[in-house]
Amino acid sequence: MIILVKKNCEIEKLDSLINRIERHGLKTDTFNCEDYVVLSVSGDLSKIDVEAVRANDIVLGIKRVTEPFYLASRKNKKRDTVVDVCGRKIGGGNFCFIAGPCAVESEKQIVETAIQLKKAGVQILRGGAFKPRTSPYSFQGLGVEGLKYLSQAKKETGLPVVSEITSVNQLDLFSDIDVLQIGARGMQNFELLKEVGKSNKPILLKRAISATIEEWLLSAEYLLSQGCKDVILCERGIRTHEPTSRATLDLSSIPVLKELTHLPVIVDPSHASGNARYVKSLSLAGVAVGADGVMIEVHPSPETALSDGAQAVTPSVFNDIYKDVTRILPIINKRID
Amino acid sequence: MIILVKKNCEIEKLDSLINRIERHGLKTDTFNCEDYVVLSVSGDLSKIDVEAVRANDIVLGIKRVTEPFYLASRKNKKRDTVVDVCGRKIGGGNFCFIAGPCAVESEKQIVETAIQLKKAGVQILRGGAFKPRTSPYSFQGLGVEGLKYLSQAKKETGLPVVSEITSVNQLDLFSDIDVLQIGARGMQNFELLKEVGKSNKPILLKRAISATIEEWLLSAEYLLSQGCKDVILCERGIRTHEPTSRATLDLSSIPVLKELTHLPVIVDPSHASGNARYVKSLSLAGVAVGADGVMIEVHPSPETALSDGAQAVTPSVFNDIYKDVTRILPIINKRID
Amino acid sequence: MIILVKKNCEIEKLDSLINRIERHGLKTDTFNCEDYVVLSVSGDLSKIDVEAVRANDIVLGIKRVTEPFYLASRKNKKRDTVVDVCGRKIGGGNFCFIAGPCAVESEKQIVETAIQLKKAGVQILRGGAFKPRTSPYSFQGLGVEGLKYLSQAKKETGLPVVSEITSVNQLDLFSDIDVLQIGARGMQNFELLKEVGKSNKPILLKRAISATIEEWLLSAEYLLSQGCKDVILCERGIRTHEPTSRATLDLSSIPVLKELTHLPVIVDPSHASGNARYVKSLSLAGVAVGADGVMIEVHPSPETALSDGAQAVTPSVFNDIYKDVTRILPIINKRID
Amino acid sequence: MIILVKKNCEIEKLDSLINRIERHGLKTDTFNCEDYVVLSVSGDLSKIDVEAVRANDIVLGIKRVTEPFYLASRKNKKRDTVVDVCGRKIGGGNFCFIAGPCAVESEKQIVETAIQLKKAGVQILRGGAFKPRTSPYSFQGLGVEGLKYLSQAKKETGLPVVSEITSVNQLDLFSDIDVLQIGARGMQNFELLKEVGKSNKPILLKRAISATIEEWLLSAEYLLSQGCKDVILCERGIRTHEPTSRATLDLSSIPVLKELTHLPVIVDPSHASGNARYVKSLSLAGVAVGADGVMIEVHPSPETALSDGAQAVTPSVFNDIYKDVTRILPIINKRID
Repeated sequence: MIILVKKNCEIEKLDSLINRIERHGLKTDTFNCEDYVVLSVSGDLSKIDVEAVRANDIVLGIKRVTEPFYLASRKNKKRDTVVDVCGRKIGGGNFCFIAGPCAVESEKQIVETAIQLKKAGVQILRGGAFKPRTSPYSFQGLGVEGLKYLSQAKKETGLPVVSEITSVNQLDLFSDIDVLQIGARGMQNFELLKEVGKSNKPILLKRAISATIEEWLLSAEYLLSQGCKDVILCERGIRTHEPTSRATLDLSSIPVLKELTHLPVIVDPSHASGNARYVKSLSLAGVAVGADGVMIEVHPSPETALSDGAQAVTPSVFNDIYKDVTRILPIINKRID
Repeated sequence: MIILVKKNCEIEKLDSLINRIERHGLKTDTFNCEDYVVLSVSGDLSKIDVEAVRANDIVLGIKRVTEPFYLASRKNKKRDTVVDVCGRKIGGGNFCFIAGPCAVESEKQIVETAIQLKKAGVQILRGGAFKPRTSPYSFQGLGVEGLKYLSQAKKETGLPVVSEITSVNQLDLFSDIDVLQIGARGMQNFELLKEVGKSNKPILLKRAISATIEEWLLSAEYLLSQGCKDVILCERGIRTHEPTSRATLDLSSIPVLKELTHLPVIVDPSHASGNARYVKSLSLAGVAVGADGVMIEVHPSPETALSDGAQAVTPSVFNDIYKDVTRILPIINKRID
Repeated sequence: MIILVKKNCEIEKLDSLINRIERHGLKTDTFNCEDYVVLSVSGDLSKIDVEAVRANDIVLGIKRVTEPFYLASRKNKKRDTVVDVCGRKIGGGNFCFIAGPCAVESEKQIVETAIQLKKAGVQILRGGAFKPRTSPYSFQGLGVEGLKYLSQAKKETGLPVVSEITSVNQLDLFSDIDVLQIGARGMQNFELLKEVGKSNKPILLKRAISATIEEWLLSAEYLLSQGCKDVILCERGIRTHEPTSRATLDLSSIPVLKELTHLPVIVDPSHASGNARYVKSLSLAGVAVGADGVMIEVHPSPETALSDGAQAVTPSVFNDIYKDVTRILPIINKRID
Repeated sequence: MIILVKKNCEIEKLDSLINRIERHGLKTDTFNCEDYVVLSVSGDLSKIDVEAVRANDIVLGIKRVTEPFYLASRKNKKRDTVVDVCGRKIGGGNFCFIAGPCAVESEKQIVETAIQLKKAGVQILRGGAFKPRTSPYSFQGLGVEGLKYLSQAKKETGLPVVSEITSVNQLDLFSDIDVLQIGARGMQNFELLKEVGKSNKPILLKRAISATIEEWLLSAEYLLSQGCKDVILCERGIRTHEPTSRATLDLSSIPVLKELTHLPVIVDPSHASGNARYVKSLSLAGVAVGADGVMIEVHPSPETALSDGAQAVTPSVFNDIYKDVTRILPIINKRID
């Protein structure tokens, strides 16, 4: 890290700044330049509060080169992480389809959907039991019962399941769920991250609606620093000024993530667009841009869905998406394991 | 709510839509217009999934007039809610200063700060014990110990205290804390909202960094629908493209909120700007625009603060802010009770 | 358009509103509902100022169904517009590569680049002569001389050329340029739009960095209403909070545009990302999502470029992009004519 | 400027980078640090394309300390610029009211409004003759005739006038207009800036709807570098995700600008909110935060306005705003000259 210090500042102030930094075991070097003094800092930068340094009135500016995350960084681990979910692989060239309804609504609904999706070639079944809803008056999910129906669907099809966890108190209920999902609103629920990071399960970490990529990777770092190795990132759109989509799917984030981290990343075109008619195009774009999977909402009868019906595609549309996505895979050197 | 339906759609589809709406006990009326059919829906709109209706391919558009929140709405309660915190009033013309360090760092730090702030005229002391931090490697707060020091500061000064709660599991620890703060990242932690809403304590609800005003009021609705009456909203800036401030303080939200809701709203210029030099200007603007209070970070020695030092003002700067804020109060018909 | 009026408003106010609307030759219908009065308006809605109606204190809300653009609308013209640039087709299943340097720097630079791009399979050459630059101190382009070099490159390769026009006064200078580009900053330079719309040349209209899709199509409408038939839209990224890309390429806009308009739309991954390393991924995503072309910055020696060097790819990288893009084309039923 | 270079890069690459920088007359210094090589650059930084340097694959990062604008910078001119408009002063402690209708609609309308505003204490009259409108079908202003009516209003009241110029071709028509306004959409119409900068008239430069403060000041720099000395900045709101205001008035920009530049800055609460009901609160906030003036839309009969009626206040509401604004002025050490 480089700190640029005012050229003619009082020498005591500079000394005091250097002392405060070195006290934490970091090393500093000082160079006199024409317009400022360069203070180079090396060592464990997490020990210092960068903002507090910036607050110092002799400081002109700061430039950090190293990323604030370590375990998630590509620099720390060159090879792609391949997450294995009951034999289905995600990352390192392995592409994965995750599909299912937004919310589990009944045993019949989830089991029948699962059977259709299994036939269609899906690797992992999704379904929400605890639904974080903007309004307290909206359907909040079936809760424990929903998880039971997911287990039933898993039993009948052999498909592993992913479902969102919204509170540390629910952890015990998720024993039969294969992948824990942290939703967009939970991405910075750090107490939840600390707990699920210890769960020994793969975790699907959605990007918060206005998170920067750095903030997202720092949330992944919370999980990794608890011992979790299997984090799947999920891009699901960011909030912008454009009203025609519910969120703007940030597909540029995929190549950026591929540089910054070894973790696999999938794309959720359903929540991003909020509109079933755009799901196919965005799925194809997601594959082409380099994502390791797509997560698509499928509902046998979208118009009667209890939540987010507008964005769910029918199983027959899903078949069509699946077919074209798999045609693009070889072009970008990916395969379904 | 008005649903605009395609003029020449199949009559069975329209009937089926009407049936699905009326099944929930709502009433519909139909009018034929030149370009579309108008379907007017009245009754408890929370029963229907607006997005699912929008997904219907005969639907051209939807216009909702009533707000999706009830208890928080000015329509439901005309008179301003006045929150009483151990005798200090917020709302209904009563202005309130909340001040203190970002994080409690030691007993000495918080007690001495509290004594100075008491003298300066502050009504409520703030201090973080559980700190939600973007990086797992940043100082996470003193936790239980921090709460203890806050109690000590309260005992020595008589100032009521506000502190942030970040998990349902912490509720018991907050028994001596007078106001529970829900931070920006917790605004849509619905499980937490449901629990603290039952706590019988006033709640300070910060706006999430990219929340719309409607989403914010729906989070307040979560609290109110659990029986909580004393919700204080806190505007703390939204994320925009402008990099000179950490967040853009959305002062326009204050007059909008004054129309939409009876709840008091305060302004946090410290977290918004992330820069102590801008805190005074933004505090004056906050009062002038109609806020019911300001929450300002004060630290005896900002440069050594363990978190967010860049934005904390010294007690002497705070005195200066206090003086000018109180000069504006009579102009906008507010007072400190 | 539907106007929702307060149930018990003074009848004179409602009458006066209706009069003001009908005076412009529009037709109104009134229906009494439980919670409001519905006023349905049909006819030429461009005659009324929607915002002024909304300002009326008896108005609860407005819902417009028809789009504010007509000539650009898919409703007005079902079949895709195919723009023909000296025999190269864009739209209606015809895909097009536009490539070249950000700025024309010398005759040698543009002619040699053009020769390489011709060989690589490019249909149209791009190159900036008048460069709109954020700073008055940055290189502003070679101006007239740059246009001359472009003509030379066209003569030597037969490639048609596109270049940005930044002022009405430049029109005469662009006689040998085949496609006039309106840059992002010019999208709402309405005086310029009115003039170039009369030029009888195809126009490439970039999206402004914070334009909504509706605003963009209204700028296209300015061109079309002047008699221009050949408008090519160009998505080049929108401004968001994410700092890793210069702008966030809004690929979701492509399927939305395909519904709303008959005009072809291409994608500019170079300006969006501002980073050559991401151009290939974003180009593939652009094709897959349904764009009718890509516009890519190519520079023989990006590190010495006089502007935007960071985003230019070398001719050899371009060849690689070309190869993979053309492999995706048949999957989405597109071809290069 | 500091360039951080990879530690073990090929020495030829570093030499080549240094050569390219020094060729432009800049000076470099090199220091070896533990994690990187620091290359310090001093001199006229406008000579190098920072983005091109960043594109160099041996470059880890860049930190610029000096601002990219010079003439607009507070560093270049410590004392506040005071703009004098026919004797009315703006800046340096002098506060100014600018008011009038969005568009000039008739001689009667503008003259009568001017008379009322003169009585109310206004210093400068505003009125649009050339209106940049999102839709080609909206009222585009009265053009030349509108300017004539403005002259008439000026003659009858003695009030100087400000009006927006939208094309270089209009300059001659504005001879009797005292202040040329560059609208938000024109802020980066650089050809227009270059021309009006030579006009010897004060210029009111609005912030583009998604401009950063730096971009805005660079547009001011375009004007100043043409010899113009009298630039008044005008904050009019930025585009965010919040739908209740048309734009989010960025009041935080005011204290930031007060540090960065010597130019006066005013606030336009009317265009920002798009809603007359919020104009008073935002005006008071604008004064309190440190603006040097407010520009308010006033219309004798907002409901019949031909453009932007929703945001115009009546003369009587304006009187009320004026009264309370002037009560805040002494608190922040400002006065009306």
